[in-house]
Amino acid sequence: EGPGATAAEIEGLPFGEITLTGQRWALDDVRLLSPMLPSKVVCVGRNYADHAAEQDAEVPSEPLLFLKPSTSVAGPGDSVVLPDVSDEVEHEAELAIVIGFPGARKVSREAAPASIYGYTCANDVTARDLQRKDGQWARAKGFDSFGPIGPWIETEFDPADAEVRCEVNGEVRQLGSTKDMVFDPAQIVSYVSHVMTLLPGDVIMTGTPAGIGPLESGDSVSVSVAGIGTLTNKVIASE
Amino acid sequence: EGPGATAAEIEGLPFGEITLTGQRWALDDVRLLSPMLPSKVVCVGRNYADHAAEQDAEVPSEPLLFLKPSTSVAGPGDSVVLPDVSDEVEHEAELAIVIGFPGARKVSREAAPASIYGYTCANDVTARDLQRKDGQWARAKGFDSFGPIGPWIETEFDPADAEVRCEVNGEVRQLGSTKDMVFDPAQIVSYVSHVMTLLPGDVIMTGTPAGIGPLESGDSVSVSVAGIGTLTNKVIASE
Repeated sequence: EGPGATAAEIEGLPFGEITLTGQRWALDDVRLLSPMLPSKVVCVGRNYADHAAEQDAEVPSEPLLFLKPSTSVAGPGDSVVLPDVSDEVEHEAELAIVIGFPGARKVSREAAPASIYGYTCANDVTARDLQRKDGQWARAKGFDSFGPIGPWIETEFDPADAEVRCEVNGEVRQLGSTKDMVFDPAQIVSYVSHVMTLLPGDVIMTGTPAGIGPLESGDSVSVSVAGIGTLTNKVIASE
Repeated sequence: EGPGATAAEIEGLPFGEITLTGQRWALDDVRLLSPMLPSKVVCVGRNYADHAAEQDAEVPSEPLLFLKPSTSVAGPGDSVVLPDVSDEVEHEAELAIVIGFPGARKVSREAAPASIYGYTCANDVTARDLQRKDGQWARAKGFDSFGPIGPWIETEFDPADAEVRCEVNGEVRQLGSTKDMVFDPAQIVSYVSHVMTLLPGDVIMTGTPAGIGPLESGDSVSVSVAGIGTLTNKVIASE
């Protein structure tokens, strides 16, 4: 990241040995896509006590799971599109887990880290009014473009104590640390894998710290996880 | 269906013109797979008033959406595996919509039927105790094997008034008609497509009529939709 940074081109899927084509590009000259096209996006609700409190909710005794459709995934620089049926779209900055090859099914907490390919930043964009109205969160969190991930997958990341930050137009809105997660990534991967088989490239969003707030058309929203990078998206009104 | 029925082999995906290989097999001699591997399974809750009433729930003013992961999909004859963390797994017989090529995004109710490739039977298997406990339904309805679909896709089906039936070990448990749906397939496809882009092969389960009830290890559960066929699965305990 930063001035003069370059991107190296790889061939095929990034699992296992990465094959470099030898081609490098200035990062400013390329448009990065979503670093993964997951078959599913599993999310963990209320995984930071301070966020549960701001939602007047209890911290759950087990990870609270919900799903975002794969069609909600967007990449760095893509637009978050505000649907015209909501007046209250909000950001949720999160650390995201990317599952590696060959996936995970009923793995123990101890074995779970071996199922993790790496980590990226995610924004679990949520139409708060529809979330309250529906009760089920699939619609409120499932609109196209409501799941930006990126800017890349960091394979050497330690999730024990990393700052998670959200800025809107340069103003800090959320500032937390992964050390305050109720359930850590190994616990989450183990738990989810006992419910549903995790396939290579599947993404798990690990919950958001306190400070969720509104997104308006024209905003620039950034999610940063220290040690990974910054995922920036602009916010636009529905066409 | 029935004695002497045969299956014709096709090549590639079934969208558009179907290519027959010329090979036919006796239906008894082949194992049918799930007729589609959807990128997502969208479900509509409380879409029959009698089922909403048995759940002490109101009929929603808009379709109530939730998601099942693609890993929950099973085919005809596959086992429904009871997870050891639930004591209350139940059947939900449903008509399922299969989206055709090229998918659907923000289609009107009038244009929606053109987005439908065909229909099949589905069982929205649900761990009722976990559904109550979690509030969000992703876990309770998301276990591997909790989304049987099949036995095939009927492309000439009229969803206006078709019997939906569930039998467990030959005993009728659910008996309803698609005419009692709160929202019909065209309304559902239009509504979902305004939230999330529907891709070819995506499946929408349209809700269940009254009569949901328990599944036990050793049971044989069948979902029949008149005009489509019968989807039968055996129920087994977790290994």
